[in-house]
Amino acid sequence: MAPMTDDSRFGLARSVTLAGPLRLDGGARLAPVEIAYETYGSLDADGGNAVLICHALTGDQHVASTHPITGKPGWWTRMVGAGKPIDPARHFIICANVLGSCLGSSGPGTIDPATGAPYAMRFPVITIRDMVRAQAILLDHLGVGTLAAAVGGSMGGMQVLQWAATYPDRLRSAVAIASTARHSAQNIAFHEVGRQAIMADPKWAGGDYYAAGDPPAAGLAVARMAAHITYLSEAGLTEKFGRRLQARDAKSFGFDADFQIESYLRHQGISFVDRFDANSYLYITRAMDYFDLAEEHGGLLAGAFQGAKRTRFCLVSFDTDWLYPTAESRAIVHALNAAGAPVSFVELSSPFGHDAFLLDVPELNRVVDGFLRAGEDR
Amino acid sequence: MAPMTDDSRFGLARSVTLAGPLRLDGGARLAPVEIAYETYGSLDADGGNAVLICHALTGDQHVASTHPITGKPGWWTRMVGAGKPIDPARHFIICANVLGSCLGSSGPGTIDPATGAPYAMRFPVITIRDMVRAQAILLDHLGVGTLAAAVGGSMGGMQVLQWAATYPDRLRSAVAIASTARHSAQNIAFHEVGRQAIMADPKWAGGDYYAAGDPPAAGLAVARMAAHITYLSEAGLTEKFGRRLQARDAKSFGFDADFQIESYLRHQGISFVDRFDANSYLYITRAMDYFDLAEEHGGLLAGAFQGAKRTRFCLVSFDTDWLYPTAESRAIVHALNAAGAPVSFVELSSPFGHDAFLLDVPELNRVVDGFLRAGEDR
Repeated sequence: MAPMTDDSRFGLARSVTLAGPLRLDGGARLAPVEIAYETYGSLDADGGNAVLICHALTGDQHVASTHPITGKPGWWTRMVGAGKPIDPARHFIICANVLGSCLGSSGPGTIDPATGAPYAMRFPVITIRDMVRAQAILLDHLGVGTLAAAVGGSMGGMQVLQWAATYPDRLRSAVAIASTARHSAQNIAFHEVGRQAIMADPKWAGGDYYAAGDPPAAGLAVARMAAHITYLSEAGLTEKFGRRLQARDAKSFGFDADFQIESYLRHQGISFVDRFDANSYLYITRAMDYFDLAEEHGGLLAGAFQGAKRTRFCLVSFDTDWLYPTAESRAIVHALNAAGAPVSFVELSSPFGHDAFLLDVPELNRVVDGFLRAGEDR
Repeated sequence: MAPMTDDSRFGLARSVTLAGPLRLDGGARLAPVEIAYETYGSLDADGGNAVLICHALTGDQHVASTHPITGKPGWWTRMVGAGKPIDPARHFIICANVLGSCLGSSGPGTIDPATGAPYAMRFPVITIRDMVRAQAILLDHLGVGTLAAAVGGSMGGMQVLQWAATYPDRLRSAVAIASTARHSAQNIAFHEVGRQAIMADPKWAGGDYYAAGDPPAAGLAVARMAAHITYLSEAGLTEKFGRRLQARDAKSFGFDADFQIESYLRHQGISFVDRFDANSYLYITRAMDYFDLAEEHGGLLAGAFQGAKRTRFCLVSFDTDWLYPTAESRAIVHALNAAGAPVSFVELSSPFGHDAFLLDVPELNRVVDGFLRAGEDR
């Protein structure tokens, strides 16, 4: 697929417009396909050192560079950078904004060339596989045939597993952290609450809020607050906040944020709306809810990995993650065993719940580093 | 306190307006105090057979009678009724709508005599202890000195424990099911999401929506949906819904309720707003978040039970309840042991999470029945 435009002259932060069409699981054909991405390091002469980083629901391509809106460091500088397990000195690192998101890749906020207006809810519903397909055509564009590794946590891990199911011949190693092979009823339920919060906000206006410049911030903030609770463990919340009150020493007997956990959550909600699009939140949560790798294999997950016998897998879970608990990773390990694919698995201990994959967990770095280096001794 | 009015001539469903003032923990004095309640059975000549049932957040006084709005049976007919552990043939059963609620007791929807308009957010913020104080003046009015037992689940259990802390001499037996002695950071966080969802709804209008007759239904529905997830276990949700789709057999690739769990949750949200007031939801969740029996005793829960050495306690938890997990009940048991109060404790097994206390769990009935009967052999 020839690029229509590629502004890679701007350095690391790149975007490309591919002509498409990209055939989507829902039946639609998306054209053109815009993909915003970053790269770090350079591709070896033999093309063997490419590592794809797959980001989570509200993540983006700024894996190890300053976020353009928040001004904060990249979301995975603990894992990606000089001297880190994924190192530009050794790897050609690619991280692309997922399809449906709002940081430059095609999504509901993108202009629909057929109308000249944002797609909004006319953007086709996408799946995790559609995100992976878009990544595959980006790799084609970049001249990357086979990935040394795909690495991701949470929804990033779903994409990694989907890579193994859809393009096993292009994937030598797969690292899926704090993830799952299918969304559970409880996972879907939490996402549905978030979607209902957004759609209940009158400013959502059926998704057509872009022209007015007045997005459904209140609804999106509530969605983020609800989701954020699921990213943290009960024990972690107790350790971090407990029942501690705000600066003033007594309860207000009112509805201000008396407890530190309340103001923390409100801050999480309010700051999120500055950097994320409400419609993208609807589309990406939908893609996650639709995710079930075993579905096309009669419910047998091993069927999804039949082509991936030559891919090496590394699964990591966290003991306090109740969003995608260890049992989910273990089910994947069993399926990989049944499919005859090599897999190493570890449950790490952390008080921080699901969020641990983004935090300072030295054991996680050691596991990923060791796994990737072992795969490079070829 | 002499009653201003008492419409007990209407039978079981009663209400009384007590002159007050009732001194509240927040410093306000509430007057008058309206209390809507039901009674079943009759008080023994020696006044020794009174059982107070304490209801949960969205419960009400219709413990074993048809709900006036929904037309559904009382919320605890499995526990209260002829041949049940709490039996009108044996007990004088009292269940009062809690202060702050919306089924007839004083709450934000009540007319403020000072203005002739509903209190709305001018209603004083209340605590679990304030609810219990209102119950105590109701018992005075009814001529009940000492309770044979106070029994409740969830927030009802908090009231039972508060009874033991505040009026131990009026309480012979206490049954607290699926409850806690303090709200955790995670408990507060979920409630805060619900409050923010309500207050984000433009129809909330700072709480003054009564005159327009157009309440913040969308916000309240989202609050209920988020809370409802916490009432169910992950395993229970998987067993009941899994990833099963609605009647149509395929994914819609849209935002309708594709999964059964989605339409179930939406139904929970929508049906709730017909029977509950959004401001009451704010006030009662606030009271629960403020609940911490150890707070006035330097964080030592045993201190709260120093006066309750002659009260018998029965604690019950459910193994899949992650809202108030077994560890919370166990902490109460340890405090009661330290205080020298007699306590029996059992963790029951149920797939249904926190909601189990409302469902058909024969073991629960056997435990409560045995405990109450043992206390009646005096």
